[in-house]
Amino acid sequence: MKLASFSTHLGSSFGIVRDETVFDLGKRLGGRYADLKALIAADAFREAAQAADGAQGDYPLSEVTLLPVIPNPEQIFCVGLNYADHVKETNRETTEHPVIFMRVPASQVGHGQPMLRPPESQKFDYEGEIAVIIGRGGRRIAEADAWNHIAGYACYNDGSVRDWQLHTGQWGPGKNFYRTGAFGPWMVTSDEIEPNAVMTLVTRLNGQEVQRATTQMLIHGIAKQIAYLSTFTPLSPGDVIVTGTPGGVGAKRNPPLFMKAGDVAEVEVDRIGVLSNPIADEA
Amino acid sequence: MKLASFSTHLGSSFGIVRDETVFDLGKRLGGRYADLKALIAADAFREAAQAADGAQGDYPLSEVTLLPVIPNPEQIFCVGLNYADHVKETNRETTEHPVIFMRVPASQVGHGQPMLRPPESQKFDYEGEIAVIIGRGGRRIAEADAWNHIAGYACYNDGSVRDWQLHTGQWGPGKNFYRTGAFGPWMVTSDEIEPNAVMTLVTRLNGQEVQRATTQMLIHGIAKQIAYLSTFTPLSPGDVIVTGTPGGVGAKRNPPLFMKAGDVAEVEVDRIGVLSNPIADEA
Repeated sequence: MKLASFSTHLGSSFGIVRDETVFDLGKRLGGRYADLKALIAADAFREAAQAADGAQGDYPLSEVTLLPVIPNPEQIFCVGLNYADHVKETNRETTEHPVIFMRVPASQVGHGQPMLRPPESQKFDYEGEIAVIIGRGGRRIAEADAWNHIAGYACYNDGSVRDWQLHTGQWGPGKNFYRTGAFGPWMVTSDEIEPNAVMTLVTRLNGQEVQRATTQMLIHGIAKQIAYLSTFTPLSPGDVIVTGTPGGVGAKRNPPLFMKAGDVAEVEVDRIGVLSNPIADEA
Repeated sequence: MKLASFSTHLGSSFGIVRDETVFDLGKRLGGRYADLKALIAADAFREAAQAADGAQGDYPLSEVTLLPVIPNPEQIFCVGLNYADHVKETNRETTEHPVIFMRVPASQVGHGQPMLRPPESQKFDYEGEIAVIIGRGGRRIAEADAWNHIAGYACYNDGSVRDWQLHTGQWGPGKNFYRTGAFGPWMVTSDEIEPNAVMTLVTRLNGQEVQRATTQMLIHGIAKQIAYLSTFTPLSPGDVIVTGTPGGVGAKRNPPLFMKAGDVAEVEVDRIGVLSNPIADEA
């Protein structure tokens, strides 16, 4: 099942995406769940599926505005330096523990919405990644049990303003410019993707492939990430883990390849779909 | 005016603290504001003051449980290495831009509540700081205008699990263990503290003074912090900026001085008050 957050002229809602059609669960479930995060927290995927079963869709997919899959996560954790080729291109060392930084919700956009290059920088870079959306919350989750805490998976473009990322040793500012990260187009629920599934991640800029990796190449795998993060903080339904980007980022190419207005960035993960965003200058 | 968030057997609310008494604004304002963040967003401090004017308090201060001043900020930004003596004791360099890292709401506790040392570490350290609570939101706020965006000030103990802070170059994990940071006891509204006011910050562990500084010693002052942060992200009412800790942290003492169960940590800021928390082992 593909679950998305979206808006129409009626406001924000969430629903199931099937055959280029959206089933509006906000409406069909009688307002029982305020948003997709609430649906996940209530563990109500079966109820959601039944509400769309045998029914006709409410909107053509092309007529809604997709929002970040979870527009309002309590926590967004990102894992840095988690593929060997990216560690190497940045001249850094592999670490025993995952490298963790954070994003704020305001830094995100949905599929199809422009990722904004701020006027403060010319160094706006892509980072294709796989995002994990937490289902059942928990603390000190064992690696072996981690898969039971995943609601689903999505594509993520961890758009990075490189000069601001390197202002100091802490990367937050360059990772949190307004509407620079893309999260979508939807999440595929974890009942369709088995634990430790091998997924292939490809990033394209203007149709040219710039990154390619599989989840087998992750240094700190998804289960370990969940175990590590939940050691220090309770994970909650709708929390997002952005699992790391492979080699090939624009800043480390020769010559560098940064994103500019008019470009189109795509992140494709097999079994999930394609997240596509135009790049625009922030007005 | 002193504004606090608190809970009683009736649930969570927020109110004015005066003469060891709490005026319950959740009740007195007829539920018009869900929480202190909502009161700030509505710019309703005058209405709040009127609701308590000439009235008797609702609870003795000693009978409520104080919560983090803002229990649910959208964003909590912390500034690292922002006093010269602390930069020196950590063998680091002063940076042109503020060092920014982030905390999540689950990492916070209110005044009087135990700060928890997790079983994963023996290196639980204090960091006394002054917290700024954002009032009017904004983006790309000019330094000269920054003071108009502050709702108030509070004390903060940016409790840090040092070994986890240094697992990698990114400090987030050691700064975000569950209930390790203290934020309180209340906020003093900015109408009582003039722009660029000199405030003195003192940290005590078990009554012994371990840190002392004034806001004149900040490398990147409060107005600059607001300008810098709002360049990359919209600041919203109730957002929190934790402005940095001076020298004297426990990890850099000889011998090191870490917090353990039974200790009491205090952060005092003149014109605000004393934030006091016992230390406990996480169960």
